[in-house]
Amino acid sequence: MSKFANERVRDLTPYTPGEQPKDAQYIKLNTNESPFPPSERAMRAIDRRQLEDLRLYSDPEATELTQAIARALDVPPQCVLATNGSDETLAFCFMAFCDARGVRFADITYGFYPVYAQLFGIPATLCPVDESLRIDPQAYCNVGQTVLIANPNAQTGIALTRDQLRRVIETNPDQVVVVDEAYVDFGAQSCVPLVAEYPNLVVVQTLSKSRSLAGGRIGFAIAQPHLIEDLKTVKYSFNPYNLDRLNIVLAAQAMADRETFRTRCEQIASVRETFKRALDGLGMQYTPSQANFVLAKHPKIDGATLQRKLKEQGILVRHFTDPKIADYVRITIGTQEQMQSLTQAIARITEAI
Amino acid sequence: MSKFANERVRDLTPYTPGEQPKDAQYIKLNTNESPFPPSERAMRAIDRRQLEDLRLYSDPEATELTQAIARALDVPPQCVLATNGSDETLAFCFMAFCDARGVRFADITYGFYPVYAQLFGIPATLCPVDESLRIDPQAYCNVGQTVLIANPNAQTGIALTRDQLRRVIETNPDQVVVVDEAYVDFGAQSCVPLVAEYPNLVVVQTLSKSRSLAGGRIGFAIAQPHLIEDLKTVKYSFNPYNLDRLNIVLAAQAMADRETFRTRCEQIASVRETFKRALDGLGMQYTPSQANFVLAKHPKIDGATLQRKLKEQGILVRHFTDPKIADYVRITIGTQEQMQSLTQAIARITEAI
Repeated sequence: MSKFANERVRDLTPYTPGEQPKDAQYIKLNTNESPFPPSERAMRAIDRRQLEDLRLYSDPEATELTQAIARALDVPPQCVLATNGSDETLAFCFMAFCDARGVRFADITYGFYPVYAQLFGIPATLCPVDESLRIDPQAYCNVGQTVLIANPNAQTGIALTRDQLRRVIETNPDQVVVVDEAYVDFGAQSCVPLVAEYPNLVVVQTLSKSRSLAGGRIGFAIAQPHLIEDLKTVKYSFNPYNLDRLNIVLAAQAMADRETFRTRCEQIASVRETFKRALDGLGMQYTPSQANFVLAKHPKIDGATLQRKLKEQGILVRHFTDPKIADYVRITIGTQEQMQSLTQAIARITEAI
Repeated sequence: MSKFANERVRDLTPYTPGEQPKDAQYIKLNTNESPFPPSERAMRAIDRRQLEDLRLYSDPEATELTQAIARALDVPPQCVLATNGSDETLAFCFMAFCDARGVRFADITYGFYPVYAQLFGIPATLCPVDESLRIDPQAYCNVGQTVLIANPNAQTGIALTRDQLRRVIETNPDQVVVVDEAYVDFGAQSCVPLVAEYPNLVVVQTLSKSRSLAGGRIGFAIAQPHLIEDLKTVKYSFNPYNLDRLNIVLAAQAMADRETFRTRCEQIASVRETFKRALDGLGMQYTPSQANFVLAKHPKIDGATLQRKLKEQGILVRHFTDPKIADYVRITIGTQEQMQSLTQAIARITEAI
């Protein structure tokens, strides 16, 4: 930190992204990426003309993408705002809707929420998950604060039902409720169908996981137009051209390619369920995840050690130091073959103890 | 604005980007884009493998691009931070360095500066440019505020010399001085060689203009490592994966392709000087611009009318409503042929008055 940094920066503890090794030798199950390439239709859309046109600014409204998202999710385009990753959507939500009344989220959830609260000086109330790592929706009803719930929850993959979230939204009519659905496409219920009903609901999604575009950095908000307008006010005051040309095209095509989306989400959900049975076979405990990852622990080995030993065997998984989940590792669902390699590696490691 | 918007958003007046027509029928001289496509070497770097790898997150450090920028500008990589457009660099500077002492910039300059000041609640002191639309560097010496100078200045293209800026930097040792060099490559003196000397200098550049990548959204800061670390603290608290995979590759290759960069900058500067003589021939006044645009006015027609009439003839230029420059239009330097079409169109319009 320099002597020129202001107070805001002096106290900040930034987010730590998962490891991104530069050699491609690992089986990479640590950052919840898709094992599949992006939609063929999306990749084919990038041609010489698209590259030459990079000399021109991108469309600040990202019209092509906004319309593709609206069609895919069956909402009007005025209910959509596309951003540079869903992290940017979340940042814009903090900038637009949070105030001194504060924000409420779980103690075990996406690690970026407390960072945003700190960055924007918003008091944060952390609601503990229960012993089985579940969010208690009751703790978010009638709270008089902005509510932020990842559903399925980050780290655990456990989802609330749409009706449970409906009650949270209904009992906080004067505050915005943000439902972060980064992992919703692998089996949980989306709150997008509730947007038409509730003027205080913002649903956040990303193309990073279920549409294989983590490297493209595209996320979006779905909400009623008055909330989208607030988010646009922030966007046009922060970074109007937040989306680049190539990824607007790629993302629009990926949203339109429903068949690839559907089959791959089903495939990942199916591999996940098969992998849960393999975990049973290994004597491991795990969360009832509906996401493209599971949080799992072995009775004989702590999370940090398991993570390290797997890395030695060429497999990356993620470990979090929070005491509630320090026993666990978070494992991204890859291909069937990758999960078999992982199962064998865990077996070797735990048998040797 | 919704009833859920916080105070910050309620009072915001966002930035208005230049017109981005969706039909390609205009000669587009309104947003200071390059008339040339990106470096051939950059475009060739995007292949099937790059597209397939989009399933993986981008490198949060953008190492390949950071190193390419460092090599091209002859600074250590620790002195570089790449961002999602130079707008994001500017936002990060406000977030990292500005405080209640405020920020000082010109009344005629990049229209985003006052928006950032408002967004982040920083008191802004607007220093008037003089009657010939020049920045007086004296007004920025010993000010005890963060200083933000576009050089060459936006809208006018008029540049200060490196020695004039050196004095501004030297007389504000306890504040950061940000020099926004979006337009520096077309003939002005860059302050990058001063970075090694001054611990309070941040130079901001972009690949949007001189490297034909406006649609890719890539900018960067050059500063001593302690200031880069502060900016990284903000980046990792706001949007760690702010740059996508394809544009990291494109931008790295564009930075490495020095020959294309040099010849195109020279070409644009040469067309600009030829165009100034054409403006003389039309009886127009213009700023002594060293950028890829000029600000010009005709004695017989106001700026808004000229802009409208040119649009009717299929040519887009930009008009600003600020009284000091309302008589003018801002004209991007395109190809020789485009400037000839524009010259003929202005002649037709003004002869008809």
